[in-house]
Amino acid sequence: MTIALKRTTPLRSIPGGGARLVDRVNHPDDSVVSVGGVPVGGRRFTVIAGPCAVESTSQVEASADAVRFYGGHILRGGGFKPRSSPYTFQGHGMEGLRLLRAASHRTGLPVVSEVLESSEIPHMAPLVDAFQVGARNMQNVPLLRALGRQSRPVLLKRGQSATVEELLFAAEFILAGGNSAVILCERGIRTFEPSTRNTLDLNAVAVLKRDTHLPVIVDPSHGTGRSELVLPLARAAVAVGAEGIIVEVHHRPSEALSDGRQSLSPDGFGKLMAGIAPFVAAAGRELI
Amino acid sequence: MTIALKRTTPLRSIPGGGARLVDRVNHPDDSVVSVGGVPVGGRRFTVIAGPCAVESTSQVEASADAVRFYGGHILRGGGFKPRSSPYTFQGHGMEGLRLLRAASHRTGLPVVSEVLESSEIPHMAPLVDAFQVGARNMQNVPLLRALGRQSRPVLLKRGQSATVEELLFAAEFILAGGNSAVILCERGIRTFEPSTRNTLDLNAVAVLKRDTHLPVIVDPSHGTGRSELVLPLARAAVAVGAEGIIVEVHHRPSEALSDGRQSLSPDGFGKLMAGIAPFVAAAGRELI
Amino acid sequence: MTIALKRTTPLRSIPGGGARLVDRVNHPDDSVVSVGGVPVGGRRFTVIAGPCAVESTSQVEASADAVRFYGGHILRGGGFKPRSSPYTFQGHGMEGLRLLRAASHRTGLPVVSEVLESSEIPHMAPLVDAFQVGARNMQNVPLLRALGRQSRPVLLKRGQSATVEELLFAAEFILAGGNSAVILCERGIRTFEPSTRNTLDLNAVAVLKRDTHLPVIVDPSHGTGRSELVLPLARAAVAVGAEGIIVEVHHRPSEALSDGRQSLSPDGFGKLMAGIAPFVAAAGRELI
Amino acid sequence: MTIALKRTTPLRSIPGGGARLVDRVNHPDDSVVSVGGVPVGGRRFTVIAGPCAVESTSQVEASADAVRFYGGHILRGGGFKPRSSPYTFQGHGMEGLRLLRAASHRTGLPVVSEVLESSEIPHMAPLVDAFQVGARNMQNVPLLRALGRQSRPVLLKRGQSATVEELLFAAEFILAGGNSAVILCERGIRTFEPSTRNTLDLNAVAVLKRDTHLPVIVDPSHGTGRSELVLPLARAAVAVGAEGIIVEVHHRPSEALSDGRQSLSPDGFGKLMAGIAPFVAAAGRELI
Repeated sequence: MTIALKRTTPLRSIPGGGARLVDRVNHPDDSVVSVGGVPVGGRRFTVIAGPCAVESTSQVEASADAVRFYGGHILRGGGFKPRSSPYTFQGHGMEGLRLLRAASHRTGLPVVSEVLESSEIPHMAPLVDAFQVGARNMQNVPLLRALGRQSRPVLLKRGQSATVEELLFAAEFILAGGNSAVILCERGIRTFEPSTRNTLDLNAVAVLKRDTHLPVIVDPSHGTGRSELVLPLARAAVAVGAEGIIVEVHHRPSEALSDGRQSLSPDGFGKLMAGIAPFVAAAGRELI
Repeated sequence: MTIALKRTTPLRSIPGGGARLVDRVNHPDDSVVSVGGVPVGGRRFTVIAGPCAVESTSQVEASADAVRFYGGHILRGGGFKPRSSPYTFQGHGMEGLRLLRAASHRTGLPVVSEVLESSEIPHMAPLVDAFQVGARNMQNVPLLRALGRQSRPVLLKRGQSATVEELLFAAEFILAGGNSAVILCERGIRTFEPSTRNTLDLNAVAVLKRDTHLPVIVDPSHGTGRSELVLPLARAAVAVGAEGIIVEVHHRPSEALSDGRQSLSPDGFGKLMAGIAPFVAAAGRELI
Repeated sequence: MTIALKRTTPLRSIPGGGARLVDRVNHPDDSVVSVGGVPVGGRRFTVIAGPCAVESTSQVEASADAVRFYGGHILRGGGFKPRSSPYTFQGHGMEGLRLLRAASHRTGLPVVSEVLESSEIPHMAPLVDAFQVGARNMQNVPLLRALGRQSRPVLLKRGQSATVEELLFAAEFILAGGNSAVILCERGIRTFEPSTRNTLDLNAVAVLKRDTHLPVIVDPSHGTGRSELVLPLARAAVAVGAEGIIVEVHHRPSEALSDGRQSLSPDGFGKLMAGIAPFVAAAGRELI
Repeated sequence: MTIALKRTTPLRSIPGGGARLVDRVNHPDDSVVSVGGVPVGGRRFTVIAGPCAVESTSQVEASADAVRFYGGHILRGGGFKPRSSPYTFQGHGMEGLRLLRAASHRTGLPVVSEVLESSEIPHMAPLVDAFQVGARNMQNVPLLRALGRQSRPVLLKRGQSATVEELLFAAEFILAGGNSAVILCERGIRTFEPSTRNTLDLNAVAVLKRDTHLPVIVDPSHGTGRSELVLPLARAAVAVGAEGIIVEVHHRPSEALSDGRQSLSPDGFGKLMAGIAPFVAAAGRELI
């Protein structure tokens, strides 16, 4: 007789019993997280955009200007890039974050950037409005715990083979530490399908919107890996109930040092913003 | 040094060279397939609905009436059910198809039903307006070839671990036989995620709409396995560019002999039709 | 609160209750299936080998002679090939099976070949000692039922994304029809890993040996897709408890019309037989 | 026309061109890594065993004594446990490592334990003979870099959805930093199959033994999640060419605070050592 093992944690030994902090059951209203004054969650549909990595002053300025010009709300850009190979571009580190902060001042857009290790948190905190935890670090427990002990919002990306339950438990580490400003992000899971870089799991967004009060956004850039697929999947993200998207925009995608294949040009970003607008309206949301 | 094998067929030894019959490159316009007079494809958004299996006269009548009442366009229902176990309900066979045809006359809706073997085709042909090939049979070559030699349209569902390219090649078997009336259907792929029955792959719909001229529809019932997730994923299917959906409707889901967990009640189907309407409009399509 | 759906069939509504015919619980001893007089199962370790497809008289003769010379027990070879594309070699059909039967007479080895549709069974029966059901057809219910109504043994390959439970239920269709001569075959599942064609799931073999009395063999050719990996994985198959292997042997792999990349040369097959021998002994089995 | 994206890093911009440090091409001989004087790699077959987590003095002593008694070579045990939930046992931290070191003195076995963050390295270094990087941290770049700058050996586990190439690139981060004492570990990948906790990918071991000179071991405890499957998969690991195994042993599995379902009892561990012995001999290796 086969014994079917449960994949997800079967028991929730929660102090006092009952639900987790992330669960909607004890917190029926949608949470809204403020990133440098820009709300994420609730009735709004928030667009986070910018280059994969900060490469140069001119690149981050041109990309940020495009994000601002076409109506994006928050600027993204990486200083520390966790790459698969030690021989590819790893980011400009703190210097990159200073360029990003300058672009933030220039455009008025708050910024989010990825943190790789808890020791970086105090150094990064003055330069970013929100910390991103990347898919590779979704279960980096020391990092999650450290982010729970500070007050900047956290954009937590789902691991490429993490279940929805594991994503919620990862968020719980942050909330249990005292920081409830967590935004969840579906960014594609790893499957057998080779025509796209990952398989964007929009089922998971619908499940998350039922199970948790935290805001949920979608990354159609990593979720497809192909710039020409970003718009249709961004529309689908709106329709399934996501509260925002995060996309890669580069002023010259063909020259990008990383992820150029999935980056939108400024013009492409403009078409994205125009293309999602009727669906945001159909969803009863506002582009802020 | 690792040799990366290609998963999809790398060479297309096509007579005369060039593209396949399914490829958009030589057929830039969207194909429209007529199912008993109802068009699938092009600017329309077509809703196919009905019970998983035909169970009884009253069941199929009540379900079909609901589909008709709320504006569905084509009736679905199974006579031959390919189940995982020999000890579960396998369908009422030809008798079930006769009940389905009666419900078709009663409501004026054309019907689509699954065929399991080529020998059934001539017997089923008078009773159905289109043949469905289920996920388990996507690469049943004798069945595909036989369907290529007759003229009824074919609704071809993606196998649960078939790549987009394999789906297109499966369709090519039918077109190569002379029947170009093929509708493709994304119905969820098998992944590690346990919170839904399958993972609906809407990336695949966007890829298919670029690569092929054939109409593409989505099955959010099998794609999620949970009736409460059918509406949000149906909205996402509209937004990503699908030309229709196929959903399970049962007059009493809790009493269904199969797939009750993912079936909509008549009321739930009404809410689905109302819920997708603004997104169909946003997509620039019409609910016929 | 997430509802975790079970993937495998949760209820076994078996007439009279209790276990399935495939389950070991009511049949503790290992079953032995005779293929043309050659036993598969029990203490023996059986090697099935031959070309992917029958291509020509000289090819099947040379390949069969090599299988015989190096000690293989059963000859495999395809007449009907279910290929992904309609434009690749589809096999020589019944003519191929006649060549295979001639090679069987020449070498004294019984033969197994794939059947694609129930209507082929009576035509193929005089030419084969066992029917193979391929991975694409594991859930082809009419085919499984028809094979249950005849007496030739059946080699049932696991679907590329079928669970162990689904494989057992597929076998149950055959046993429930009256034919208990079923051999199960693990041949690799589809995962995200690109370095091999499939991922050979030897966990499944260990699970099957606990749960069922049916013999279980392994296909390291399809399970890896690379001829240089066939020997180490064949050794692992022996060690995990499989009762045999099925491998592809071609007299000139580089000229094979299909699957040449994973086919062993005669010399390679000789090294395979020598290479597994000490592991077969360590496992307490005999190479017949 | 579908564009097939490559999943693995396509270009290796390696300084000076050519192969990576991990590649066998420029380093044809097998590397042997010494863990506290115990060699891993080459002709030896090394068994690493111990409890999932260090729970108490009596538990670690009893488990370590069993490992020693039945012939295990290296002791494993966790002080820092990266768990999916913040509400389950997270390990006793440095206190656990002191108990582990005491058990090491008692038995003469060197110890390996998991490190979660680079800041822990100097504190842990006096207490462990090798650092383990768990599956969740395989792409934790700051941790990999820090481990490359010290001299203790590193046991690097494959991420649950990491490709073989990604595992090799993760190891390359460590070697590029100057530490070439890296042991790779296959511990199961995440698939759709629910009958086992993970799917042990022994194909990957065969691929790794071709592509890299680093020693490769297998974890059949996590790779199956079921104690009754550890022995057959350990035998398969020997047969496929692994140079060792790492298994969980607990003096009372039913009382374990974590992973009891997959832990061997002392008696079960004795049977494992006896059960693999003939296969180690067949593989031409020695149990040290």
